Amino acid sequence: MDKAGDLRLRYRQALAADIPALVAMLADDELGATREDGSEPPNQRYLSAFRSIDEDPNNELVVVEADGDRAGMLQLTFIPYLTHTGSWRCLIEGVRIARDYRGRGLGGEFIRWAIDRARQRDCALVQLTSDKKRPDAIRFYQSLGFKATHEGFKLKL
Amino acid sequence: MDKAGDLRLRYRQALAADIPALVAMLADDELGATREDGSEPPNQRYLSAFRSIDEDPNNELVVVEADGDRAGMLQLTFIPYLTHTGSWRCLIEGVRIARDYRGRGLGGEFIRWAIDRARQRDCALVQLTSDKKRPDAIRFYQSLGFKATHEGFKLKL
Repeated sequence: MDKAGDLRLRYRQALAADIPALVAMLADDELGATREDGSEPPNQRYLSAFRSIDEDPNNELVVVEADGDRAGMLQLTFIPYLTHTGSWRCLIEGVRIARDYRGRGLGGEFIRWAIDRARQRDCALVQLTSDKKRPDAIRFYQSLGFKATHEGFKLKL
Repeated sequence: MDKAGDLRLRYRQALAADIPALVAMLADDELGATREDGSEPPNQRYLSAFRSIDEDPNNELVVVEADGDRAGMLQLTFIPYLTHTGSWRCLIEGVRIARDYRGRGLGGEFIRWAIDRARQRDCALVQLTSDKKRPDAIRFYQSLGFKATHEGFKLKL
């Protein structure tokens, strides 16, 4: 099996044509399986969310291709804050690696790419939350230098 | 001392004229004291961050006034995601209550107001992170129904 270093990786903004593949990637996950709708044609809510992301210069839905295959996805949100003497932060969310590409170091490459992108956007901080039910993900982010200094609170409406 | 219920509260978008008072509020905090610049006139970085927030329809910097005084601040970011069958989330950040108004239930009123605002903006989820060094804040968010289901990771650039 090829390691990420042997794959030809390309990072690009997601297109509307990617939506079915991205929804399939979100649904192919222990937690995602219960909350996504993989029916075809895609649920209109996905198209509407995609348009909102695509129109917003502070949101980037990114696809990583490996040898031309859609191998992973994540979303970056760039947020201006008064805190830390006025600064931008990058929030990473919705990180998924396609099943065939897991365990090959691709996730690490992807997050390092995202950190570089946050630097290009002049961010002082990158942040994300990881479900406590995903111990492998937690170790993964720690291995990339992230510090679990905060509790991540959620409230469903 | 008046409880929040006895105060006349008003919630409004922050104005450029609020910046010195908001920076003072951010700096008057155990963690904030080391990372804010309370000099006058305000550091240009605060003005620049304020403009970026003010121009972005998905960011709202909110001031709560109590009997006409600036009593607290927080920032809301509304973010569209493909996840959860296409949905918006509200991220709360930079919550501060002015020293004279702490311990009077104002924080709870403010967060409940923010949750209502997230509902108005059609969000399915409200999320925030709280520094593990702030045990009182952690109990506070739990008391409002937030669940600490996630680790909150940060990486300084």
